[in-house]
Amino acid sequence: MTTHIRRTGDFRWDGIPVSAYKPGGTHFAGITRQLLFEGGEGLGCQLRYFEVAPTGYSSLERHRHAHAIMVIRGRGRALVGDRILELGTHDLVRVPPRTWHQFRADGEEPFGFLCMVDCGRDSPERPDQDELSDLRADPAIAEFIRI
Amino acid sequence: MTTHIRRTGDFRWDGIPVSAYKPGGTHFAGITRQLLFEGGEGLGCQLRYFEVAPTGYSSLERHRHAHAIMVIRGRGRALVGDRILELGTHDLVRVPPRTWHQFRADGEEPFGFLCMVDCGRDSPERPDQDELSDLRADPAIAEFIRI
Repeated sequence: MTTHIRRTGDFRWDGIPVSAYKPGGTHFAGITRQLLFEGGEGLGCQLRYFEVAPTGYSSLERHRHAHAIMVIRGRGRALVGDRILELGTHDLVRVPPRTWHQFRADGEEPFGFLCMVDCGRDSPERPDQDELSDLRADPAIAEFIRI
Repeated sequence: MTTHIRRTGDFRWDGIPVSAYKPGGTHFAGITRQLLFEGGEGLGCQLRYFEVAPTGYSSLERHRHAHAIMVIRGRGRALVGDRILELGTHDLVRVPPRTWHQFRADGEEPFGFLCMVDCGRDSPERPDQDELSDLRADPAIAEFIRI
């Protein structure tokens, strides 16, 4: 593994591919993933960089593992539990276990954030119709979420 | 634990204290530590932010656990193993297990970097006289290191 990985341009890194956010689906849009540190060899966690285009959004999901997030580009908004957060560069967000969350860009610039997770983690789940109804009981959340 | 932690100023965060880098000693200088994510509750890792003043340096040390680092402020240099790296903002550095490393600022601005580690990790060790002699066999490393 390379010791020093240079930033090569605007939020791109030497030898690190810009990947699809997830294998496929229509429950997300305009979002890419770069795996900055994959873990292993003395490290039980990963650091990923996600970038959301101005009209994009991540998947509305939850899981048992937690996320620890730092914004490093632009501005965005996030649903975390029952709160909608307004996020700027270098703000931190903790997504606790089993908490619904979704990220959206806010503005004309891409919205980029680091996300730290354990290497060993469970798969995300998406809301079923009952859970969606519960979420939509709050008008602000109903307006915010994209599925 | 708070879900959203706002950046409050230049590389400071709401409610996160600026701490001493280590309990004490003369083997480091001009460096502070902020614990951004402490782990626990679904997360087995921590994210710290270290900031090195223009004349400062971290401890020359090694340990079994690995570091995964992203520069987010200024410029610096690092010894990692037998290499001295020139680092700019958003560059990534992987410090493998059992590898000597030390960070120094480079320029007039503070040098700040994120460092991801496992919550469960061993304590660092510093070089003994024989190990220092080995390191100093390389003139560039001899010039670089501070103890």
